[in-house]
Amino acid sequence: MLNQYLINGRREACLAPLDRGLAYGDGVFRTFPVRAGKPHEWNLHYRRLSDDCNALGIVCPAASLLMADIEALCDEAENVVIKIIITRGEGVRGYAVPPLAQPTRILIKSALPSYPEQHFTEGVRLHLCELRLAAQPRIAGIKHLNRLENVLARMEWVDAQIVDGVLLDAEGRVIECTMSNLFVRHGDGLVTPELTRCGVAGVTRQRIIDLAPSLGYGVEVKDFDLQALFEADEVIICNSLFGAWQVRQLNEKHWPAGVLAAKLRGRLEQRDA
Amino acid sequence: MLNQYLINGRREACLAPLDRGLAYGDGVFRTFPVRAGKPHEWNLHYRRLSDDCNALGIVCPAASLLMADIEALCDEAENVVIKIIITRGEGVRGYAVPPLAQPTRILIKSALPSYPEQHFTEGVRLHLCELRLAAQPRIAGIKHLNRLENVLARMEWVDAQIVDGVLLDAEGRVIECTMSNLFVRHGDGLVTPELTRCGVAGVTRQRIIDLAPSLGYGVEVKDFDLQALFEADEVIICNSLFGAWQVRQLNEKHWPAGVLAAKLRGRLEQRDA
Repeated sequence: MLNQYLINGRREACLAPLDRGLAYGDGVFRTFPVRAGKPHEWNLHYRRLSDDCNALGIVCPAASLLMADIEALCDEAENVVIKIIITRGEGVRGYAVPPLAQPTRILIKSALPSYPEQHFTEGVRLHLCELRLAAQPRIAGIKHLNRLENVLARMEWVDAQIVDGVLLDAEGRVIECTMSNLFVRHGDGLVTPELTRCGVAGVTRQRIIDLAPSLGYGVEVKDFDLQALFEADEVIICNSLFGAWQVRQLNEKHWPAGVLAAKLRGRLEQRDA
Repeated sequence: MLNQYLINGRREACLAPLDRGLAYGDGVFRTFPVRAGKPHEWNLHYRRLSDDCNALGIVCPAASLLMADIEALCDEAENVVIKIIITRGEGVRGYAVPPLAQPTRILIKSALPSYPEQHFTEGVRLHLCELRLAAQPRIAGIKHLNRLENVLARMEWVDAQIVDGVLLDAEGRVIECTMSNLFVRHGDGLVTPELTRCGVAGVTRQRIIDLAPSLGYGVEVKDFDLQALFEADEVIICNSLFGAWQVRQLNEKHWPAGVLAAKLRGRLEQRDA
């Protein structure tokens, strides 16, 4: 399937070169599956999109407008991925925000990724990134368009057996992976890193925080280092497209097969009302 | 004058929504004046553009190709501003760089800014930004498209009398302003901040470093804090569009009129061969 687009509700596959999304990465995005024409966990994705817009002072388009875009782009029977990008809109030259800036909304439809079945049944292998995430509390947690760190970190490996890379901050705290969030299990307790200095707070991370107690796990959001990661009984990564995968290998460290990822996926895949 | 564009040499004012410049800020840019159809200090701007591309692993278009674009966009008699953006090109979803990525080159022509004459004759006033620049040595100095920090810093003031904002890093070092670099003078010595952790290394900053000795000033590139800035005999900011302005006020601190900015401008405005 070729990618298809809507820009401000119109099927024109082009964007103004003066859009501040291009000039400055002045915008935010979300990516999620749409199954049988319905976006999965839409309420959570929209809330995050809206919160992220607010944090940057961008007026988020109404949920109804974006839902109408999704319906215009997706057939009722379609299983696809939708990426929504909201930018601050077009600008003249210069960083100052034009007083009448009209946000640009861009929807991009693409095929659902076809992940190897073993990623779900056996788990995955990660790379430990050399690039360290910079601490910028002002935009930490936001899924904004300034993603050069992720790009440069992803350039560190070419081995197709490696699905993602673990990112630390400059002080050696574990933060996330380039395209996923991360949880470690010690006994019956799950821990996921604080994202108050850097990192992206994904919807699936929040869903796992919310649902873990009902599976018998305690959950803490707190800083931990690489040593604590290596000492974990299980490690999982998560995002909105694959749900949760167990990490079986990180550099020379191996973990035995566990059941956490499968249990989480069972709950994550339940449709929202 | 309306803005005019070339994208990959074509006069089509639109960009592919899958361009990685939009998705990730995966690209670099330069802005400079073109006078009588000739770009000012083209060799220096091209070298920086090329160095910045290399640092991100982007293949920079040839200088001759970009110069042909400039000539196609500008009349021989025109005095304008050209912004060149080079992105890594279009991608599929995901951070991994497509093996056959073809860089996108975007040239945007706009009117020369009409700065108030007093900025040159009397100097300017700055704001001290609350936002602190994050330390990311991997991309420090590069004029890349991840500029949300500059956008958010510029949102801190609305007073039209304030022309720019001073940015510190998390440790309180003075780094730059949102759209300019900064020099302080103590006696006959100029100092400009190290840009190895954050900041953008402008062409005009380099030109001042190079030409200052011939005006009788020593030059050092080194870290300094706000106290050293306040204790300077003179402070100037510089960029490729206005050259150099003296800073006369930063919050409650005032500086008397000096001659450094005018002397520097006299040399900066000399045409390259």
